[in-house]
Amino acid sequence: MTISVEPAFADWSRDIAMRMEEVLAGLLPAASATPGRLHEAMRYSTLGGGKRVRAMLAHAAGRVTSAPADRVGIVASAVELIHAYSLIHDDLPCMDDDVLRRGKPTCHVEFDEATALLAGDALQALAFQLVSEYKLCDDPLHQLKLIETFAHACGSRGMAGGQAVDLGNVGKEIALPELEFMHILKTGALIRASVLMGAACGQPITTGQQAALDRYAQCVGLAFQVVDDILDCEASTESLGKTAGKDQEQGKPTYVSLMGLPGAKSFAVELLADADTALAVFDGRAARLRELAAFIVNRHH
Amino acid sequence: MTISVEPAFADWSRDIAMRMEEVLAGLLPAASATPGRLHEAMRYSTLGGGKRVRAMLAHAAGRVTSAPADRVGIVASAVELIHAYSLIHDDLPCMDDDVLRRGKPTCHVEFDEATALLAGDALQALAFQLVSEYKLCDDPLHQLKLIETFAHACGSRGMAGGQAVDLGNVGKEIALPELEFMHILKTGALIRASVLMGAACGQPITTGQQAALDRYAQCVGLAFQVVDDILDCEASTESLGKTAGKDQEQGKPTYVSLMGLPGAKSFAVELLADADTALAVFDGRAARLRELAAFIVNRHH
Repeated sequence: MTISVEPAFADWSRDIAMRMEEVLAGLLPAASATPGRLHEAMRYSTLGGGKRVRAMLAHAAGRVTSAPADRVGIVASAVELIHAYSLIHDDLPCMDDDVLRRGKPTCHVEFDEATALLAGDALQALAFQLVSEYKLCDDPLHQLKLIETFAHACGSRGMAGGQAVDLGNVGKEIALPELEFMHILKTGALIRASVLMGAACGQPITTGQQAALDRYAQCVGLAFQVVDDILDCEASTESLGKTAGKDQEQGKPTYVSLMGLPGAKSFAVELLADADTALAVFDGRAARLRELAAFIVNRHH
Repeated sequence: MTISVEPAFADWSRDIAMRMEEVLAGLLPAASATPGRLHEAMRYSTLGGGKRVRAMLAHAAGRVTSAPADRVGIVASAVELIHAYSLIHDDLPCMDDDVLRRGKPTCHVEFDEATALLAGDALQALAFQLVSEYKLCDDPLHQLKLIETFAHACGSRGMAGGQAVDLGNVGKEIALPELEFMHILKTGALIRASVLMGAACGQPITTGQQAALDRYAQCVGLAFQVVDDILDCEASTESLGKTAGKDQEQGKPTYVSLMGLPGAKSFAVELLADADTALAVFDGRAARLRELAAFIVNRHH
């Protein structure tokens, strides 16, 4: 009899981040392949950093359905590519106009605006190439459904839409429901997709379990944003690896500006409890999802 | 016995363009749906114009495999969405910086740069949503393959890569092979995908027939570009609906600058003959593909 000992969360998450780096490096086109400068920009903005929270969510959700790690690795890569592209476009002068990301110059600063624009565009296409090229589900119809969920999360009723709503909110007096709506689209949609797609690579689950994962993902997605706002207000540019205090400076409404610092902090704790409760329908295989939620709420950068 | 009389090409192409307009209007999110401004920009840049050459190619190729028209309509819409997104991004100040497209102000002029950027991003996501959401092939594995072909055509080894190569060529002395390589990616990849995806919605074809369609698509893709260069040099801004003479002004290498006007014209005729020859393996169902190639070479805008 083999006794399998689960690594502690810190080891597991470090391992996922390292494996993601390797997998992404292998999936991204080589910088030596034409067009080299474009491929270099794609690699520059995807590799060498990032918390890989979305990849971890996909992997943790995959454990709930006993999904093969290599399939989840593809899904996790696709989600990280979309995340990387969204950051590149978000940092462009016509959007947030930021010069620092993950402690490095942003893509358009390191390369140029046109290359950054195209690198983002090509990363989005590559993400959809991955989820169609590799076998991810036993039933190909499930895989088509997975791609649909993914595309919806990226589009105008998901991430891109959230960024548009965010732009429209700058300098405006908005209330909590509008702020929440924006974040559910802007960061929540892709976080939700990470969880659902990771789980979809494994055994089928019941509608109730599906709804529980969805609820978990919503809580974690919001909590992630609330903590981001807290960190933007409390942490230094150095520890964040991106310009701190920008939200306030740009007059962007945040959970901190609307709820105050203590209010935002207790809201994050509440969301963590809700995420935990949602997982009650699962067995011990949901342990990583629980740990991950706690990690997201308690992180310092 | 019913005798079915095929409409003439002009009627057929007008009918496709009209139907595409309707289908796209129905598939695009309503401008009344949040985020309204983003959806408005997506509709503005996709509806009300364009030659719909890619949609026609998909429909003409679909006839070769007796593909159901509603399936091809989805594929054609997806390709037109990608085309529309590429034009929006291409027109941005950091790229071609153009103010006129299809006889109207470009997206970033009519809206703003950030909205144009996001509208392009969201159109790409919507395209992949469509090809995963609707049933396009009898065998879902074929549909996954279709999506892979599509994503590859959009990415760094396809359209986005071609735009990067194009940027790198500005002001450089390049020879015909490099110009051809750029166009095979920049416009050729999506035109090829239109043909292959349209055909993939119908009955399976042999490897030889697949190769013939591929050859046809390559010839038509190049011919399309050669004619574009000829028109950019000969036609007026008014008849083109976009700024004429821009290539020369920007020092961009074109078929006309490298081959001269008569050389470019005879090259286009040669490509048309090659496209025709490639179709020899098909029966009368390839008639529209032949007519479409001739239309593309003989068009005046």
